[in-house]
Amino acid sequence: MRPITFDRLCYRIDGRCAYLNSGEFHYFRVPKKDWRERMRLLKAAGGNCLATYTPWLIHEPQEGRFVFGSDDGVTDVEGFIAAAAAEGLYVVARPGPYQYSELVAAGLARWLTEAYPEILARGIDGKPYNPISVSYLHPLFLEKVRNWFAAICPILARHTVARGGPVALAQPDNELAGIHLWMGGPDYHPETMGFGRPDGRYARFLRTRYGDPAELNRLYGTDFAAFEDVRPTAEKTQDAPTLRRRKDYFDFYCSTVAEYVQVLASMMREFGLDVPLVHNSASTNMNAHFLETVSAFKGKLLLGSDHYYNLGPDWPQNNPTPQYAARVFCSTESLRLMGFPPTVWELPGGSCSDWPAIHPNDLKACYFANLALGMKGHNYYVFTGGPNPPGAGSTTDNYDYGAGIGAAGEVRPIYRVQEAFGRFIAERPWLAEARREHDVRIAVNLEMMRAGNYWAGDHGLPDADPDVWDFVHRGLLTTAFCASFSPNLCRLDADDWADDPATPVIVPSGQVMSAARQQAVVRFCRRGGAVLIAPLVPALDERFEPCTVLADFLGCGGARRIGKDGDRTRLNIDGVPNVFSNAAAFVCECVPPSAAVLGTAEPGGGCVCWTAKTDGGGTVIHLAFRWLHAMSAHSRVLANLLGRLGAARKVVCSNPNVWTSLRTAGGRSVLFLVNLTAAPLAAQVTCRPAWSADPIDTGARELPAMTVLTVDLAAQP
Amino acid sequence: MRPITFDRLCYRIDGRCAYLNSGEFHYFRVPKKDWRERMRLLKAAGGNCLATYTPWLIHEPQEGRFVFGSDDGVTDVEGFIAAAAAEGLYVVARPGPYQYSELVAAGLARWLTEAYPEILARGIDGKPYNPISVSYLHPLFLEKVRNWFAAICPILARHTVARGGPVALAQPDNELAGIHLWMGGPDYHPETMGFGRPDGRYARFLRTRYGDPAELNRLYGTDFAAFEDVRPTAEKTQDAPTLRRRKDYFDFYCSTVAEYVQVLASMMREFGLDVPLVHNSASTNMNAHFLETVSAFKGKLLLGSDHYYNLGPDWPQNNPTPQYAARVFCSTESLRLMGFPPTVWELPGGSCSDWPAIHPNDLKACYFANLALGMKGHNYYVFTGGPNPPGAGSTTDNYDYGAGIGAAGEVRPIYRVQEAFGRFIAERPWLAEARREHDVRIAVNLEMMRAGNYWAGDHGLPDADPDVWDFVHRGLLTTAFCASFSPNLCRLDADDWADDPATPVIVPSGQVMSAARQQAVVRFCRRGGAVLIAPLVPALDERFEPCTVLADFLGCGGARRIGKDGDRTRLNIDGVPNVFSNAAAFVCECVPPSAAVLGTAEPGGGCVCWTAKTDGGGTVIHLAFRWLHAMSAHSRVLANLLGRLGAARKVVCSNPNVWTSLRTAGGRSVLFLVNLTAAPLAAQVTCRPAWSADPIDTGARELPAMTVLTVDLAAQP
Repeated sequence: MRPITFDRLCYRIDGRCAYLNSGEFHYFRVPKKDWRERMRLLKAAGGNCLATYTPWLIHEPQEGRFVFGSDDGVTDVEGFIAAAAAEGLYVVARPGPYQYSELVAAGLARWLTEAYPEILARGIDGKPYNPISVSYLHPLFLEKVRNWFAAICPILARHTVARGGPVALAQPDNELAGIHLWMGGPDYHPETMGFGRPDGRYARFLRTRYGDPAELNRLYGTDFAAFEDVRPTAEKTQDAPTLRRRKDYFDFYCSTVAEYVQVLASMMREFGLDVPLVHNSASTNMNAHFLETVSAFKGKLLLGSDHYYNLGPDWPQNNPTPQYAARVFCSTESLRLMGFPPTVWELPGGSCSDWPAIHPNDLKACYFANLALGMKGHNYYVFTGGPNPPGAGSTTDNYDYGAGIGAAGEVRPIYRVQEAFGRFIAERPWLAEARREHDVRIAVNLEMMRAGNYWAGDHGLPDADPDVWDFVHRGLLTTAFCASFSPNLCRLDADDWADDPATPVIVPSGQVMSAARQQAVVRFCRRGGAVLIAPLVPALDERFEPCTVLADFLGCGGARRIGKDGDRTRLNIDGVPNVFSNAAAFVCECVPPSAAVLGTAEPGGGCVCWTAKTDGGGTVIHLAFRWLHAMSAHSRVLANLLGRLGAARKVVCSNPNVWTSLRTAGGRSVLFLVNLTAAPLAAQVTCRPAWSADPIDTGARELPAMTVLTVDLAAQP
Repeated sequence: MRPITFDRLCYRIDGRCAYLNSGEFHYFRVPKKDWRERMRLLKAAGGNCLATYTPWLIHEPQEGRFVFGSDDGVTDVEGFIAAAAAEGLYVVARPGPYQYSELVAAGLARWLTEAYPEILARGIDGKPYNPISVSYLHPLFLEKVRNWFAAICPILARHTVARGGPVALAQPDNELAGIHLWMGGPDYHPETMGFGRPDGRYARFLRTRYGDPAELNRLYGTDFAAFEDVRPTAEKTQDAPTLRRRKDYFDFYCSTVAEYVQVLASMMREFGLDVPLVHNSASTNMNAHFLETVSAFKGKLLLGSDHYYNLGPDWPQNNPTPQYAARVFCSTESLRLMGFPPTVWELPGGSCSDWPAIHPNDLKACYFANLALGMKGHNYYVFTGGPNPPGAGSTTDNYDYGAGIGAAGEVRPIYRVQEAFGRFIAERPWLAEARREHDVRIAVNLEMMRAGNYWAGDHGLPDADPDVWDFVHRGLLTTAFCASFSPNLCRLDADDWADDPATPVIVPSGQVMSAARQQAVVRFCRRGGAVLIAPLVPALDERFEPCTVLADFLGCGGARRIGKDGDRTRLNIDGVPNVFSNAAAFVCECVPPSAAVLGTAEPGGGCVCWTAKTDGGGTVIHLAFRWLHAMSAHSRVLANLLGRLGAARKVVCSNPNVWTSLRTAGGRSVLFLVNLTAAPLAAQVTCRPAWSADPIDTGARELPAMTVLTVDLAAQP
């Protein structure tokens, strides 16, 4: 089999754009006699790949005693890989050390944390917070991992594509950071982090960031004699010095995750496993935790994400929803912007809970919605389940998962959905290289996605980055979709977007934006670009120090938050009266002299929106208002302002609850009409693909509840 | 028009059982010229009643200056009442003082809290927490309310049914306690509560509860010299003394709400408004806040509840869900158990947000699900909307609400749903006196519904009442519905249920249960009743003092919580292996000598479930396990255990996601099949109404997404 590679656009097999259609399939759960037959079912549903954990838990039952190749198949990794090869399926190997997968000890060797409790991750109080959360970079842990990798990786390495086998990709660890953040927070293990040591990781991080302790002390309001004296703060108050310390620690923690993945990767290489690496961020909102990791690998580790919508009674929604779609879009777009073909490493194929039920048509809508929003590869979790090895399951004996192929080999309706989805993809191979047609861009600072980890509660600033990130998906994106725009994201810290002044850009911003990002916005304006900035023009850089590059360029000043509880603040913006403010509104305290006021607040008449021309022929609108989409007035305001900036809709859809996505490659397009409500909807839709001079009327469409309808479009040959 | 009365079973008009089909309709929002036509539309949709606020905000714009009877209709209460009378519609008058209704100052006179800030409710720190949250019993506030009632109540009183008018019911205030609890917590206004005064409300409450300060000091671990020295505690720790103090304060707060309603009621009477009173609890989980109020009125104030499922972007679900149905059922059942025909005073007729959209078929499913689960009267909120009087709206100028009849009089699809719903009710007048057929009862302590207000976080007890209440609706009820049982609730503190030993009773219990309630369970057993108690046999009374009446009777002892994080606890219960524990499990430390062990935990083999015969021929099962419904194993355990207790299903439904309700009066029944998922479902259903000796096969049914299907059944004449 030929290697699998990837670039920014798509996966490539044999140099050709290809969609990765994978299914999670565990040899240790599926009876050996059923492997081949179920693999054929996967292939028949369009699958070209499978993924499997190889659990440390199962293969090293006592320290130093490794078990591989049992007759029942439970430990027969090589037999399984051979079966996949025989069926012509690629293999994604996930050797851990963590697996999760509802396994005891999250898939770690069972003896590990019992025998070596000193490796457990610690809270800021210095105490372990969970019996199976390990400090990733603890030397003793890494030593044990090395022993495990020395056993498993050579086995996998014998079967890589370079050696004629099917193992094409490998995944270090699983849903990194989850085992810490979900269980109590970042790891503060003193030995791992090296507190108190000049060569400790924390001191080195701070030295790189600040150079001189005096600079750190100035920003922290402290008087540490040296970097090794610094300790993370448990303080929850959110004045600027505390916020800096908390942000620094979280950034540092993310850098230790990157280092950990590098260590795992070098072990893999050392033991011969030299296929491209991948990793799965645990959810739609965790991709930015891996900015350091992606950067460390210079694009050579493909980050994907897991896109569940319900795994049990504590999940708020039972089925895919428009809110889920907005989160999915943030995820696929952030992956694309990091340089990868957006991959959903765990696309639900069932659930570890029987209730709320995962219905086949909900899954179908989920799959097509992910495809509409940019997915270029997926891995059903799980394609098929089966009995856990005795004592290995943390939830159940029978890991059936309600999957398309049941534990006893039953072919279920979910499988038929996967067949249909696979057929749809197979019949449109060009979709793998398709791009989403867009008419407006939202230029984000991806670090905002993770700001909630250090920034919460009261603080001295008028607005907080976690709230601005909520605004991105619950406000801007949701409003844009409801208002029939086709937004794409772009990265404020990448240069590419500023090179294209033809499409307007929305810049969601709180008070904080680095000088470089502010300069990028200035550059865009100077090139004649059109910008909508909301809710604030930044006044601080990423260290919360004064930085008014953009404000100075625009000639504008600060803003004051309005709309306290019980006040009646009335916003009138660009011809839309009485715009409901459910999040935050601000009055601009200094408007550029040349600006035209577009919106005011009552009482008082303060300016909440203005527009001005910039040097270089750019246009700026500052909308000092942040909302969660709730009112049609929100749509009207956005439509009016984007109209001023020259946005021309790619798709015009009459129903705000039918969200659309137009994906095009060359002269072909698919128009996706997405109904993630429980109600039947109707819509009249026209669209304007890049290859068409005129709008195409796709007619009146009826969408049953929870349905994604697709319309194939092609240029006349 | 004849008076409207009510009893435990139903509303009565002219002595006959009747369904109250009401619509909220605001004269101050709907143009006067449109009143009659829209009233006729309400009537054509089966309406027999309308409800309206009469906002203090609008009618007393300056203190002492009252405005009534404007030509435009905005203040023409009497013209509006006359129009309703002419159209033959009853009127529910809601004169406040609070209205909410997205009005400025929540409908209070605008000058009130500005001129008299001393009336504002206070937090435990003594400071006001919200500029429009008033201390209900503050004498100055009551004085101003009295002036308002002196103006409005005589107007309403001239048009009561006794005087030939349509005003049949009146509602003091609105969604009581919401203005405090949502904004910061119970009111601690020192003057209102009388801190420090021997005759203060708080001292009197404590004196009534404890008699002697020594008793209070013993329980609080304090040394107050007198009741007036006691202050509520801000302490959040949850040791027994703190828990007692916090519970006492919340109980006290609820008693002040009851006193406030009594004051308002006596003012209404004083000013001639002598119709039966009603009130609307703000949500499905707030009915128990009114136990003291209902008790103070000795059943003469009809408590209903508001049953929204989505009012904006912060609500977790977009449409009715099975979880909503379980909450609705807790609400309708608790209302029934308090002695009222369950009434949904605010049944959604739209939303104050445009998004997430309220779809007509979602509403239809919502209406029929509420009817299936016991609703005997409703009031669409709102039936029709319109422009707010200038400056009166807190959210929007045009209070259209997306209602069935739009602000401009548009007849929308939601209205057609209301027509169909009204027709369904009108064609089955006997439904008003129907009862739900049940095969098992869940005997609840309603105070648990409100325990989350004082009981949260760490505490010394093995289990907390708020978690047990979650268990009632997210565990027991959900499992029972999924397992095709037809549960009803009954009240542990009422005697009636213990008189019927034929139907088994589930007793959800933490460690806490009053002696009287424990005795009721004992009495039931002595009469031969069958009881399933879970998760704990109580060991403390409602004051958290040792009380083992039930344990002594059963001859059992304590239980120890098992299943810490990372442990692998495996439960095997009554033939069902590997039951997943997602909430809490306990090992019984002392099992009655005669008991048979039905369930054990691994490792260790501790008993988690046992059964025994009791004195008097009763049967008890103790299931030391609390879950949130997630696994089919939960259904199998419940079915097995209820089978042991003799429960015989009233309805047998093949699909766990189709929930059923069989409502019967005499020889007629309606079987409701409820699908509140976004997926089409199929089910094979048989049922056994009381009037039928044999099960009735209602056949295979297809239910589209979000649909309630009804099957009419009748005995042969």
